[in-house]
Amino acid sequence: MEDYGRFLALLGSAFLIGLVSVVLSLVWVFKYHEGLSWDGSTREFNWHPVLVITGFVFIQGIALIVYRLPWTWKCSKLLMKFIHAGLNTIAMILAIVSMVAVFEFHNARNIPNMYSLHSWIGLTAVIFYSLQLVLGFAVFLLPFAPVPLRAALMPIHVYSGQTIFATVIATALMGITEKLIFSLKSPAYSASPPEAVFVNCLGVLLVVFGALILWMASRPHWKRPPEENAKALLPVGGSSEDTEAESTMTDGRNADKSELKINSEAARKQNLKLEEAGQRSTM
Amino acid sequence: MEDYGRFLALLGSAFLIGLVSVVLSLVWVFKYHEGLSWDGSTREFNWHPVLVITGFVFIQGIALIVYRLPWTWKCSKLLMKFIHAGLNTIAMILAIVSMVAVFEFHNARNIPNMYSLHSWIGLTAVIFYSLQLVLGFAVFLLPFAPVPLRAALMPIHVYSGQTIFATVIATALMGITEKLIFSLKSPAYSASPPEAVFVNCLGVLLVVFGALILWMASRPHWKRPPEENAKALLPVGGSSEDTEAESTMTDGRNADKSELKINSEAARKQNLKLEEAGQRSTM
Repeated sequence: MEDYGRFLALLGSAFLIGLVSVVLSLVWVFKYHEGLSWDGSTREFNWHPVLVITGFVFIQGIALIVYRLPWTWKCSKLLMKFIHAGLNTIAMILAIVSMVAVFEFHNARNIPNMYSLHSWIGLTAVIFYSLQLVLGFAVFLLPFAPVPLRAALMPIHVYSGQTIFATVIATALMGITEKLIFSLKSPAYSASPPEAVFVNCLGVLLVVFGALILWMASRPHWKRPPEENAKALLPVGGSSEDTEAESTMTDGRNADKSELKINSEAARKQNLKLEEAGQRSTM
Repeated sequence: MEDYGRFLALLGSAFLIGLVSVVLSLVWVFKYHEGLSWDGSTREFNWHPVLVITGFVFIQGIALIVYRLPWTWKCSKLLMKFIHAGLNTIAMILAIVSMVAVFEFHNARNIPNMYSLHSWIGLTAVIFYSLQLVLGFAVFLLPFAPVPLRAALMPIHVYSGQTIFATVIATALMGITEKLIFSLKSPAYSASPPEAVFVNCLGVLLVVFGALILWMASRPHWKRPPEENAKALLPVGGSSEDTEAESTMTDGRNADKSELKINSEAARKQNLKLEEAGQRSTM
């Protein structure tokens, strides 16, 4: 892997910041808000930030870059797909439980549900995330989807994953804002009491975590290399990236660009099919 | 351009949604909050959402995709760089004026400044945006930066631009949340009065606008093609993308992948230099 040291440093930073965020969310609810329980009280509400930050931010973030960990490149693609899907499933379950905690807390206190922009966008994110998971499972894990469909959907899958992740962090920032305004009364949020500064710092960490994950997830040279059977068949001038369905089947502006490329383009497409077949044979 | 119809449909949708967001921000402050003026009152505060949505969201979003408009591909790269930098400069000025409006409003009312997560992340975004603009001007517009520096910084420039844009939208959502909680008292935000629903919808539109812009900005096949003088020198198998410093000079995992590639790699690098020289000759 190119820039292995830099990748490790970024990964370590992201992992540490994500973990610290989870710890800070626990400190927040235990130090300032009576801890956790499941009894309709504010302690039930407290599961909401803890589970969102643990599952919907931290675990989802790790799931986004799990293919990029170089020590997993020896593992089969199928195993990595299961790990990717498994982490996302855990994140989805935690996100749903975190929402149930809020609904139960609201209902116990006769507070209306779903009135805030935070709730609108948060629920939409959970719905899209679930759809993404179901579609991803059906198309990329089950062995039934034809290669062209996989290739056409992969860029959308990647983009959706990253966009939902960013939206979840934005929603968490709105949630922090709401919670601090509602819960800090004397002194108010505007007086910057210790809890306000503490939780603002947590919000900043979430943004830094998101930025690190999205940087790692979007560097093309840190992608998992294609399977060996396809790599051996690369034509002269065909880059290793050209064999990855993820990056190239929709990357087809080549088609109308240069006649010089026709031969290598045909070879590339053949390799693409071979590689896809190789990947599917791991299932 | 491949998928020209789809690009136009997305562009039209993004432009319309961005424009509607600006109009809705004006309706918000004129219908529900006494309109605009510059007198330290709430009417001065109102410039904040209007200028942020107009400049820091809408104009910044258009600046992000201005190289992708196919009818500009006949224009010189230098002209497009000026338009890109010009739009971002306008956005930065509007963002700074929008902050001044809030500071003056706070000071007139003895409300503390910079206590909220919204203000922390918003100010950070403005600072990074200004740095990005100054660095972009120095490295990519002025003719002094050496080619390897440009090539090394371009992926960071693109990533920073997109990340700041997403962060600005997240900050706007926090701002909407704050403003609705503070200004809606009877009925409260939780009772979903018309203003709450109206402004929540504005928040949703901002997210959709951001998602559309980031989709268009991240599709490799919608990139501006390389300059003609470089394209004519493409080797067999060298894709048109290979000549864009933006996408490939850091995309170098090829180096440790396949010896088969060495010849085309050398040709690619030569083209890269030729193309860069061609681009710089437009200055």
